[in-house]
Amino acid sequence: MDNLFERPDHAMLPGKSSWYVAVMGEIHLASDKVSPDAMAQFNLTSYLLSRQEIVTRHLENALRPRRPEILFKSMQYSLESEGKRLRPILCLAGCDLGGGDPTLAIPTACALEMLHTASLIHDDLPAMDNDDLRRGKPANHKVFGEGIALLAGDALLSYALEFILINTQQVPADRLLRVMHTLINRVGISGLAGGQAVDIESEGREEIDLETVEFIHSRKTGSLIDAAMVTGATLAGADEGTIARLSRYARKVGIAFQIVDDVLDVVGTSQQLGKTPNKDERSRKATYPRLFGVEGSMRRARELIDSAKAEMEPFGHRAIPLLAMAEFVYTRSA
Amino acid sequence: MDNLFERPDHAMLPGKSSWYVAVMGEIHLASDKVSPDAMAQFNLTSYLLSRQEIVTRHLENALRPRRPEILFKSMQYSLESEGKRLRPILCLAGCDLGGGDPTLAIPTACALEMLHTASLIHDDLPAMDNDDLRRGKPANHKVFGEGIALLAGDALLSYALEFILINTQQVPADRLLRVMHTLINRVGISGLAGGQAVDIESEGREEIDLETVEFIHSRKTGSLIDAAMVTGATLAGADEGTIARLSRYARKVGIAFQIVDDVLDVVGTSQQLGKTPNKDERSRKATYPRLFGVEGSMRRARELIDSAKAEMEPFGHRAIPLLAMAEFVYTRSA
Repeated sequence: MDNLFERPDHAMLPGKSSWYVAVMGEIHLASDKVSPDAMAQFNLTSYLLSRQEIVTRHLENALRPRRPEILFKSMQYSLESEGKRLRPILCLAGCDLGGGDPTLAIPTACALEMLHTASLIHDDLPAMDNDDLRRGKPANHKVFGEGIALLAGDALLSYALEFILINTQQVPADRLLRVMHTLINRVGISGLAGGQAVDIESEGREEIDLETVEFIHSRKTGSLIDAAMVTGATLAGADEGTIARLSRYARKVGIAFQIVDDVLDVVGTSQQLGKTPNKDERSRKATYPRLFGVEGSMRRARELIDSAKAEMEPFGHRAIPLLAMAEFVYTRSA
Repeated sequence: MDNLFERPDHAMLPGKSSWYVAVMGEIHLASDKVSPDAMAQFNLTSYLLSRQEIVTRHLENALRPRRPEILFKSMQYSLESEGKRLRPILCLAGCDLGGGDPTLAIPTACALEMLHTASLIHDDLPAMDNDDLRRGKPANHKVFGEGIALLAGDALLSYALEFILINTQQVPADRLLRVMHTLINRVGISGLAGGQAVDIESEGREEIDLETVEFIHSRKTGSLIDAAMVTGATLAGADEGTIARLSRYARKVGIAFQIVDDVLDVVGTSQQLGKTPNKDERSRKATYPRLFGVEGSMRRARELIDSAKAEMEPFGHRAIPLLAMAEFVYTRSA
């Protein structure tokens, strides 16, 4: 795994979706502590693509064929979908900023994508959001049936954790336990599952409030983005102050990410999104645009992104990738 | 937690179901290596009740109220159901036989029951076995709806692992990592989820074979029974030979347990079972009785139990509880 993170810039990979395009546009890296020169030299597209390629390659080899074949295929089907790999990339960045070799964090980065994928499979089931389309192709249960899809979610959740234990090398056991603890906590009642429960409970309600919307967003989206930064920094052996700062950055970026997601649901097309647009409005979901409209929502996202970027000031130039990623979360179009 | 395991014999707890009654009957503890006197003195009922009480008490306090309330209540509803607590009791026994203080294993014992409960919640869903009755009361999804039930399963799975990390004391980190690894492995594609996938795939098929039935049983039932013994012994710091021997015992007892379960489904009543009887036949499940009839199935269970007991010979009198439990798995009526 030598030099994985020092590959030359390369052009757009063929066959990839429009989300790359957004980052080619104007990116604000406004921060008094980071020189404009350094920012101008940083190529976010190249940064994201190189890391995404590493994660995708490892994910492709993560699952070995095993019985039962149908369950294996169902797990593989969703895992090999084209995704932004945002959580894995943030995990690698957290490890880097925490002072560690990002290679250490590759298994955990892959595990974060598996946990995210597991939750998407369950969320799409008819008993939940009843979505037929995900990441540009039929949802897992449309291909494999509801029973197998449910089990594929369960199996991916456990395999994510196993993948870390099998593949992480040269990390002390107590650090690894803390990584496990963070991930386990963020997928349960205090994280993904809790957020999704309030989400389906509040669906169809006439009255929604900001507190409910932020509860849902911070759990459904914030949890794993936070886990990504925290586990990356933990693997690196970062000090508590750094871990806490990265966690605050992640929580803010996580909510902003979800606000933009909800706005894109209102203004986007299914081709751009790879999932059914306008789904939230039709099912009367608790979203930011429902509370504040598109413009008010984007204003809130802007505040959160600026606040997240301010958290990065003590890190100086080392934080450039995280500053650029925060900005990208705001400007993305899919 | 002093003296938890040295309480005096006590009478039947009120309000408990008929499964205790079975152990009051004749128990064969035939083994050349264990003296008849020692066996006569061993009171299996008292042994099981005292341990069951400990586990149930800890499970009752395991979940603290937290938001979202509906998800918390759904998790609690299934966890507080009356169960045999077989897996937790085996975990404590595994720790004991491995030379450890069983108190160390209480959090893991509770976690095993949570993992088992999580899998039951998912198995009962309409997309899977579609069962309305579980442990003598309505299945989780009949009370809380399918979406919340699905999330309660997910949340219990992750909370089980978190519960171990929060509550296990005085166990070295590397041992704890191995415990986590064992549990994670046994709930995924190589364990519970894999077994259930083949189970629902083979449902309704005209042709079933022994290999398929044993694949399902060893995963759906054997996995967590094996995990119980292995994690108990691991927490105790037992040597590899002991762990392997306990694992072989568990695998055999696990399959025998499921054979008896399938037989009870044919001959039992819903009051005895706490779930819908004759369900397997109606849904054309892959079971032992379908292959070999009731008598042939019980013969196979007998062989497995005898073979499991033979594994215990090197442990002498210390294995009496596991010898008695193996026998109980064969003679139980619910």
